[in-house]
Amino acid sequence: MAEDRGSAVRAYLGELQRSLCASFEQLDGERQFQLDQWQRPAAAEALGGEGITAVLEEGALFERGGVALSDVHGSKLPPAATARNPGLVGRAYRAMGVSVVMHPRNPCVPTSHMNVRFFSAGDIWWFGGGFDLTPYIVHEEDALLWHRAASAACAPFHGQLYAHARKTCDDYFFLRHRGEARGLGGIFYDDLNAQAPQFGMPWERCFEFMRAVGNGFRRAYCEIVARRHAEPYGERERRYQLYRRGRYVEFNLVFDRGTLFGLQSGGRTDAILMSMPPLAQWAYRSPDAELDARLLPYLTSQRGRDWLQATGP
Amino acid sequence: MAEDRGSAVRAYLGELQRSLCASFEQLDGERQFQLDQWQRPAAAEALGGEGITAVLEEGALFERGGVALSDVHGSKLPPAATARNPGLVGRAYRAMGVSVVMHPRNPCVPTSHMNVRFFSAGDIWWFGGGFDLTPYIVHEEDALLWHRAASAACAPFHGQLYAHARKTCDDYFFLRHRGEARGLGGIFYDDLNAQAPQFGMPWERCFEFMRAVGNGFRRAYCEIVARRHAEPYGERERRYQLYRRGRYVEFNLVFDRGTLFGLQSGGRTDAILMSMPPLAQWAYRSPDAELDARLLPYLTSQRGRDWLQATGP
Repeated sequence: MAEDRGSAVRAYLGELQRSLCASFEQLDGERQFQLDQWQRPAAAEALGGEGITAVLEEGALFERGGVALSDVHGSKLPPAATARNPGLVGRAYRAMGVSVVMHPRNPCVPTSHMNVRFFSAGDIWWFGGGFDLTPYIVHEEDALLWHRAASAACAPFHGQLYAHARKTCDDYFFLRHRGEARGLGGIFYDDLNAQAPQFGMPWERCFEFMRAVGNGFRRAYCEIVARRHAEPYGERERRYQLYRRGRYVEFNLVFDRGTLFGLQSGGRTDAILMSMPPLAQWAYRSPDAELDARLLPYLTSQRGRDWLQATGP
Repeated sequence: MAEDRGSAVRAYLGELQRSLCASFEQLDGERQFQLDQWQRPAAAEALGGEGITAVLEEGALFERGGVALSDVHGSKLPPAATARNPGLVGRAYRAMGVSVVMHPRNPCVPTSHMNVRFFSAGDIWWFGGGFDLTPYIVHEEDALLWHRAASAACAPFHGQLYAHARKTCDDYFFLRHRGEARGLGGIFYDDLNAQAPQFGMPWERCFEFMRAVGNGFRRAYCEIVARRHAEPYGERERRYQLYRRGRYVEFNLVFDRGTLFGLQSGGRTDAILMSMPPLAQWAYRSPDAELDARLLPYLTSQRGRDWLQATGP
C-alpha cells in the first residue's frame, strides 16, 4: 500500500512538472525548458534517486526559471532528519517533490515560487508545500487574485487550513536582517498527515490537497503573468527589479532551509540554485525611494493584511 | 595601559582607512568614497560603538567597493562570543577593525578583500586579519606578486607565520558545495596574541604585524590594479565575471562567519553587505568552458601550489 501511494504521488508530480513546463513555454513563446535527467544509485546510507531538472534561461518572458522534480530514497534515515520523530531512525524512506521558481524579465511580472513534497517511511508519511509571490511593481488586483487562489486551494479541506498555511508562509519568508517579507506571501504547510494537530486529514485528502496546491498555483500564476507580461517598463523599473532580486538571493542563501540542506548535504548545486535570479544587484542605498515607497508597505506594515476581505475588481 | 593600546590601534585603523580610500580614489580617477559616519549608544548588554562606512559605487575602475571602520564595545560579553574562553563571560570588551572589499569593473582586475581586527577585554586581547584575491581572468605574475607580498608581510615576525596564515586562508575561503576555493588565497590569521601556540608574540609585535598586513595589502593590490586596469576586454569576459561573482555572493552569504554573525546580531545590513558585488549572474551551466579551463585549476587542483618557489618575472 505504501508503494501504491508512492507511485500515485510520483505520477502526479511527473504530470505537474510537464503541465507547468508546457504552460510556461506557451507563455514565453520563444524558449523551451532544457531537461536534465539525473540518476544517483543509493550508496550505503547515502541518498539515491532520480529526477528531472527543467531549466528555461534567456526566454522572451522568463529570464530564468526552473521546474525540478526529484524522487530520492535511502535505506536508513539519518538521525539529523528525524530529530522530531526518533522512532524513524534507521528506517528506509522515500522523499519526492516538485519545486518551481520563475524569474520574469519584465519587472511588472512577479517572481514566483511553488513547492509540493511527500515523505514516507513505511506507514509514516507526510505532505508539505505551498506557494508565494514576489512582486517588484505591485498590482493590487494580482495580490487579490493570488491570495484568493491560495484560499480556494485550502477551502475544501478545512476551515482553518488557509489561515494556518498563510501564517506559516508569512513567518517563513521573512528576511530578519532587512525586517522585510520576501514578498506578498501565499500559503505554506509542513508535516501534514492524519495525525496533524487540528487538521488530521486521511492520506487521500492530503494527496488531494497537494494537487489543489500544484494546480491552483499554475492557474493563478499563469493568469498574473498573462495580465502583466506586455506591461511597458523602462531602465528605472529594471534597475529596481535587479536591486530587489538581491533580496531574493539573500533569503535563499541565508534562510531557506531547503537550499542550505541541499548545499550542505552534497546535493546537485546548480539544480538547487536554479532558484537564484539570472542577474541581481547590490547597492549601499536603494536606487529608487519612490518605488520603495510603493513596494515596501506590502512587505512590512501591511504584511498581515486580510486580502480576502478587500474589495477588489 | 589597555586604553593606550586601544587608542593606538584605533589611530592606525583610522589612518589605514584614509590611506586605502585615497589610494583607491586615485586609481579610480572619477568617483570618490561616500562616507557614512555612524554611532550607536551602548544599551544595557547590547553593542555600542561608532564607525565610518566608506563606499565607492559606479566608479570608472571600481564598480563597487567599501572600506569600513568600526569600533564597538559592550559592558558584558555574551556567552556565545566566549565559548572558547569562558573566563571572559560578563567582561567589558572592545572590538575594532577595518574591512575592505573592492569589485573592479574590468574582469582582468581581480576582486580583493582585506580585514584587520583587534579585540580586547581587560588584559585579554587578540589580533586577527588577512587578505585574499579573487581573479576572474588570472595572470600568473599577479598571483606571484600577491603571494610574495603575503609572505613578506609575515617574514619579519616568525618563520612559520606565513605557512600557517596561508593554510588558514585556504581552508577558510572554500566553497564546499562547489568544491572550489573563492580565489587564489593569501593569508588569514585569528586569535593572535602572546599565548598563541607556536607564535607567542608580545602585543607590540602583534600590532606591528597588523600594520604590515594592512600596508602590505594596500601596496600589493594597488600595484595589481595599476597593472591591469587598462587591459582590454569584451562582452565575453564581462559575462564570465558576472557569473563568477555569483560564487562570491554564495561564499559570503552561506559561509562567511563575519557576514552571518553581523546579519544575525542585527548589525547595519547595508554596511555588512558592502562586500556583495554590484551585479552578479547565475546560470545552470557555466557560460564559458574555455575561461573555466583557465581559471578553475587555480581554485581546485593547483590550490596548494607553492607560489614562492615559482619562477616568475
